[in-house]
Amino acid sequence: MITSASNQRVKQIVQWQTRAKARREDDIFLAEGPKMYEEAPRELIREVYLTDTFLRNLRGRREHAAINIEEKLESTGYELVSEEVFARMSDTRTPQGILAVLKRPVYELEQMLDTDRPLLVLLEDLQDPGNLGTILRTGEGAGITGVIMSEITVDIFNPKTIRSTMGSIYRVPFLYVENLAETIEALRKKGIRVYAAHLRGQDYYSGFSFTEGTAFLIGNEASGLRRETADLADNYLKIPMEGQVESLNAAIAASLLVYEAHRQRNM
Amino acid sequence: MITSASNQRVKQIVQWQTRAKARREDDIFLAEGPKMYEEAPRELIREVYLTDTFLRNLRGRREHAAINIEEKLESTGYELVSEEVFARMSDTRTPQGILAVLKRPVYELEQMLDTDRPLLVLLEDLQDPGNLGTILRTGEGAGITGVIMSEITVDIFNPKTIRSTMGSIYRVPFLYVENLAETIEALRKKGIRVYAAHLRGQDYYSGFSFTEGTAFLIGNEASGLRRETADLADNYLKIPMEGQVESLNAAIAASLLVYEAHRQRNM
Repeated sequence: MITSASNQRVKQIVQWQTRAKARREDDIFLAEGPKMYEEAPRELIREVYLTDTFLRNLRGRREHAAINIEEKLESTGYELVSEEVFARMSDTRTPQGILAVLKRPVYELEQMLDTDRPLLVLLEDLQDPGNLGTILRTGEGAGITGVIMSEITVDIFNPKTIRSTMGSIYRVPFLYVENLAETIEALRKKGIRVYAAHLRGQDYYSGFSFTEGTAFLIGNEASGLRRETADLADNYLKIPMEGQVESLNAAIAASLLVYEAHRQRNM
Repeated sequence: MITSASNQRVKQIVQWQTRAKARREDDIFLAEGPKMYEEAPRELIREVYLTDTFLRNLRGRREHAAINIEEKLESTGYELVSEEVFARMSDTRTPQGILAVLKRPVYELEQMLDTDRPLLVLLEDLQDPGNLGTILRTGEGAGITGVIMSEITVDIFNPKTIRSTMGSIYRVPFLYVENLAETIEALRKKGIRVYAAHLRGQDYYSGFSFTEGTAFLIGNEASGLRRETADLADNYLKIPMEGQVESLNAAIAASLLVYEAHRQRNM
């Protein structure tokens, strides 16, 4: 059992928790909590850390999830760490006693388009990790085929993003691109209609059809889409707002759009 | 200028920031930042605290918002505090230099129903302050007529809730009720259809009409609606989910429902 916070591996985890660059250089990300461990693809798992309490609570429980986790631990192996050390390693205020180090999955644009009628979310410079995670989670629910992000969008492997995906990080294909404009052009050439969420657009629920290949382009929380990016879209659409509301949260806006597509595709 | 953190008024603000009970007993809430001050109804404002920097930055600016705030400060008055003291009083890591103490608005159920076709959100035991604030903000956008909450729902005057409403706290009527079941019965007697968001429901976008008086009932983030509460609803509805998604964030779920009502009412 690791009981010292000055242990090299503990120090390494703390680095990975706090530094995006360290995570990127080592091509890994971290996932905490039993649900995130249970749903993690076996082949991505590199290291697993547990507390004694977690292990004790797990044993003897009959729920499906607990049994899954016990079996998985046999196959992945794990390292026990003391409660104090785990608290140090954890990104959360109330650590759940299990943390996994995972290799990053890699997706290609082709994969996202290899379907009858792609449904994509394009994010330009989104900055809130919770918003990004929520977009992945809701996006999976609505059946999106991928998320494409500008380079300076918040790190999808940020611990807070990972947490708010509730596991969708393992299942929704995603991609950072150097040049979002080029990607938009490439999508349009493939016959995908690109819609920019924009205050000067038409109401999203009146007149547009999202049943064929569709991409929704969402801008930064504070400043919205860059003009030159919005200009590349086929159409502007807006979410109508009553009262004195000037804008909606970016994750809410994205969710309304992908579920409108889901509605149209399933009516 | 107040320069000491041991000043009685400063201590009082810190109490109000951190203790829901203190806020309730004194019948006040706090709002930070220029936007929250600008949009605050004049008659609710009790005290205003500013830093020198805030005031200096304000003066000489020509934007509409800055001019509004300057004029409003003349009418409400204000107290200058040092940067250090303001940092102590503020609930945020990057204080914006203006904080107002406001009297709580009071709404009646009758007010929320005094409209052609009410659109209400009923919340049972929601616990996340950010979710509650987001529901108010998106709700205002969708044109809801009120939010009704069970007694143990998170405090709507929590600083994080106030912040995430982006000003909707001043405009969306809300009410805590001792007995949510009784309120549901009362709503149904008035001809309002009550829909429980529930995994065993029908897809929310197929077959239901939300164009007449409608109330959406949303449960706690972790445990959903209590069975006895859900049983009081006219219908169960669910948000269909693809992939392995088991649930959506409560604010996302509420947003999808109120905007589906908005869509139906504006087609």
